[in-house]
Amino acid sequence: MQGLMMDMPLLISSILQHADRHFGDTEIVSRRVEGDIHRYTYSQCHQRARRVADALTRLGVHNGDRIATLAWNGYRHMELYYAVGGMGAVAHTINPRLHPDQIAWIVNHAGDSYLAFDTTFLPIIEAIAAKCPTVKGWIAMIDADKHPVSDKIPNLINYETLLSGGNDDFQWPELDERSAVALCYTSGTTGNPKGAMYSHRSTVLHAYAAALPDAMGASSRDSILPVVPMFHVNAWGLPYTAPMVGAKMVFPGPALDGKSLYELFETEGVTFSAGVPTVWLGLLQHVKQHDLKFSTFKRTVIGGSACPPAMIRTFNDDYGVEVVHAWGMTELSPLGTLSKLAGKHQKLSPAAQQKILEKQGHVIYGIDMKIVGDDGQDLPWDGTTFGNLLVRGPWVIKEYFKGEGGDPLVYDKEGRGWFPTGDVATIDADGYMQITDRSKDVIKSGGEWISSIDLENLAIAHPAVANAAVIGVAHPKWDERPLLIVARKPGAEVTREELLKFYEGKIAKFWMPDDVQFVDAIPLGATGKILKTRLREQFKDYTLPTA
Amino acid sequence: MQGLMMDMPLLISSILQHADRHFGDTEIVSRRVEGDIHRYTYSQCHQRARRVADALTRLGVHNGDRIATLAWNGYRHMELYYAVGGMGAVAHTINPRLHPDQIAWIVNHAGDSYLAFDTTFLPIIEAIAAKCPTVKGWIAMIDADKHPVSDKIPNLINYETLLSGGNDDFQWPELDERSAVALCYTSGTTGNPKGAMYSHRSTVLHAYAAALPDAMGASSRDSILPVVPMFHVNAWGLPYTAPMVGAKMVFPGPALDGKSLYELFETEGVTFSAGVPTVWLGLLQHVKQHDLKFSTFKRTVIGGSACPPAMIRTFNDDYGVEVVHAWGMTELSPLGTLSKLAGKHQKLSPAAQQKILEKQGHVIYGIDMKIVGDDGQDLPWDGTTFGNLLVRGPWVIKEYFKGEGGDPLVYDKEGRGWFPTGDVATIDADGYMQITDRSKDVIKSGGEWISSIDLENLAIAHPAVANAAVIGVAHPKWDERPLLIVARKPGAEVTREELLKFYEGKIAKFWMPDDVQFVDAIPLGATGKILKTRLREQFKDYTLPTA
Repeated sequence: MQGLMMDMPLLISSILQHADRHFGDTEIVSRRVEGDIHRYTYSQCHQRARRVADALTRLGVHNGDRIATLAWNGYRHMELYYAVGGMGAVAHTINPRLHPDQIAWIVNHAGDSYLAFDTTFLPIIEAIAAKCPTVKGWIAMIDADKHPVSDKIPNLINYETLLSGGNDDFQWPELDERSAVALCYTSGTTGNPKGAMYSHRSTVLHAYAAALPDAMGASSRDSILPVVPMFHVNAWGLPYTAPMVGAKMVFPGPALDGKSLYELFETEGVTFSAGVPTVWLGLLQHVKQHDLKFSTFKRTVIGGSACPPAMIRTFNDDYGVEVVHAWGMTELSPLGTLSKLAGKHQKLSPAAQQKILEKQGHVIYGIDMKIVGDDGQDLPWDGTTFGNLLVRGPWVIKEYFKGEGGDPLVYDKEGRGWFPTGDVATIDADGYMQITDRSKDVIKSGGEWISSIDLENLAIAHPAVANAAVIGVAHPKWDERPLLIVARKPGAEVTREELLKFYEGKIAKFWMPDDVQFVDAIPLGATGKILKTRLREQFKDYTLPTA
Repeated sequence: MQGLMMDMPLLISSILQHADRHFGDTEIVSRRVEGDIHRYTYSQCHQRARRVADALTRLGVHNGDRIATLAWNGYRHMELYYAVGGMGAVAHTINPRLHPDQIAWIVNHAGDSYLAFDTTFLPIIEAIAAKCPTVKGWIAMIDADKHPVSDKIPNLINYETLLSGGNDDFQWPELDERSAVALCYTSGTTGNPKGAMYSHRSTVLHAYAAALPDAMGASSRDSILPVVPMFHVNAWGLPYTAPMVGAKMVFPGPALDGKSLYELFETEGVTFSAGVPTVWLGLLQHVKQHDLKFSTFKRTVIGGSACPPAMIRTFNDDYGVEVVHAWGMTELSPLGTLSKLAGKHQKLSPAAQQKILEKQGHVIYGIDMKIVGDDGQDLPWDGTTFGNLLVRGPWVIKEYFKGEGGDPLVYDKEGRGWFPTGDVATIDADGYMQITDRSKDVIKSGGEWISSIDLENLAIAHPAVANAAVIGVAHPKWDERPLLIVARKPGAEVTREELLKFYEGKIAKFWMPDDVQFVDAIPLGATGKILKTRLREQFKDYTLPTA
């Protein structure tokens, strides 16, 4: 028997329409590449998005066509999100921090038919234009009177000129809610990037969940500044969540330095933000250096990589800003877990509460998770056992674009597919998850798992250690054993024995590294993460000393 | 092009499963008809719900069968919500306050195959059992050792005995999310009640929206006591919203008096509640009389009928409880609008803020609304023009069960269906709606509308008036004109002329009633609302004085 409720598809166009009709004069404020501050309203955004959709239709863009963007957080990027997705095409956001060759590879893999870009990235476009045969036109997102000139870019279109040819009586089509709305490639550290293809349905459900009090807690009282970029995983869904709840939006454009961000926070009454730890370092430094306070900033979600506990404390204790530690992935739209205290935690000591808040947190309804061993068997939720983290839910991918990499899912005995995150984690009895390692970095010794990250964090605490990495090295009896690799501080002295002794009493005995090797420097990637692949290559002929 | 996200149906079983897996030891506390306090956890609730589902399957209950309940708010009622809906049958909640004949009529119309009841309602069951041929068994929701005996009820089943025959390895089926999950009949004041048939999809989406910060703001820090009954419109969705966010639940059972409620609020750390104004009167009286305070109670949603402004102020000013005024309907699952201040209101004076909070409020994403004249044309959102309130959204009905009353929707020029609420309302420029009248009560004079409720509220403010009603009376030139009908306070004197003079300066001139008639008493219905149908009957031969 069917329910007798109105059958309305979950479409992103209905989000912007809602903001227009019910929060029409709420502002969207953007720092632009032109250098000034631009402000308009949700009603104006909706009007311009419809014009862009109409103009793209006139350009011959069809259902399912991929339209790429290479752009900062700003109102034009927001318009493109809604115009492209709303009309039934696919908004394909590309990370401009990738190498131009990678960008060209992604454009070709996606088969993008147009690419819109902030003029900051003109050099990238000039470098790739000749290599991207599917792209019929390159759209410069800038005022017409500042439109760039380039003889390296065929069919260089001005965004504002294009838009002015569109009609705002464009009607959003009633699409299948499972149709594609946006595409984002993973920044996978191994192999080629793979595309996550979000649907209207997954995007709307994610936006609902993201706004919940135990997630971002977004409301019409908020002024939201997404520091997290719109060019990667849709700025954690904020361009959908904010208009859904009628929050004011503040876009920082290209200026992500502490001073510029602080100015926007203060002039626009920002109450909520979201970003990765490194950006907050710059902001906190600026605020501390100039002895400033936040007048309106109340809470922030921090994710992307583990947030240092000290940062959580600084925000909270020194500035009265609540930090919500979060975990997600491109393949999860991206939100999976967030760490907010539950009712039962209210009576804990501040130190015990802090320990919980340092975890990556609790799933929001929609996402389910579990940890399993390499045999696929469920592991206990005791806060200490760690295993491969698997997730499922309506905003988790079931496969990558064009089937790249085959079926990524792992199936349980009921036949349900789970997405293996590649993370290793613990889950405690209350459902709070903590990432302990990446699956490929965890050291598997005699059936037991050893966290490379925990061993590294302990080593770094030694006063003579500049940086440290732990990798697994083959062992005839135990399969793998940990090898500690250390770069000493300039002029500092420390021996193998002293370092091993430093671990004593801090770890289980079988976690003790079998050896220590000294190097001049630990190799780091572009985002500051240790390049363990390079270390494994460097130590591939190394053999452990026999006991 | 399709998105590539996991295709998981939105089912209520996934809500309880989520609460079990991720908030397993969070409590559900119930005051029972047995007289004691019962407490268990979401995990236990999930286990028992599966047993009930299995036991009902063994009884021969199939997909789409209607299983009725006649019960207070309690854990067994919660189990039935999930067991019946989760297995693919339909949980049909019936209001025990209806006349037994009406209850029998509803049971027969729905074709219920089983009916579960709290033993409080044994006399009702005895009165209707012989009249309900579709019901194969009557399930008494009470401990087996207190099972009632009745020779008037064939096949009287004990709930606990039934449950003990069920197996908790029952697996929730993967249903179509558009299948029916629950059925609730309107308490329509005219004609026979009509059934709203909710789907899994509408119920899950409503639960997400209800938890948002601008709605109930529900979180895992909450202890939620629904005063609003589970026997009508699913207690405003709280049995779905609370487990979705991992909130503790507290069920008051049959004890809705001020003293019993206050005790539960205090012993169970209730932070949030929801109910109609009349219940809160009792609680506030008790608290005031005994000079008590609320230790944990922080906010409440009040709806069902307009909340008196004085009650909002008392809760807020005297007890620090935030009141969220809300509007909804059986046909809306029920939430449509809630009144929370937006960012732009933060700097208003408390008096101006209070004016906004007295309105029924702002839609939550999912619901759209508009006001139209009798010609179907949109009316302006200026906070003063009032018109018929129309709504649409994925948790609004598209028709009644069995097609009763035909197609209830009104179609706009794009062919989209809107549900006419039967309410007359204003909407201000910020999207805040205020109910001004019922469509059938508003007085239509020369193309302009006059609010009967506004005229009544003004008349009641006169010291000599006990109660007042305003109805429209036919007029040759203006179609209708207002007639004020007044019951004077015992011993009080007031003339027609004095009452009309009392309106001067308070209303537009054309709103002035054409006449005043005095009666001994204004006829009231069971819920305290004025019976205007009876007044219209009484004054059907009345003619207005010629000016």
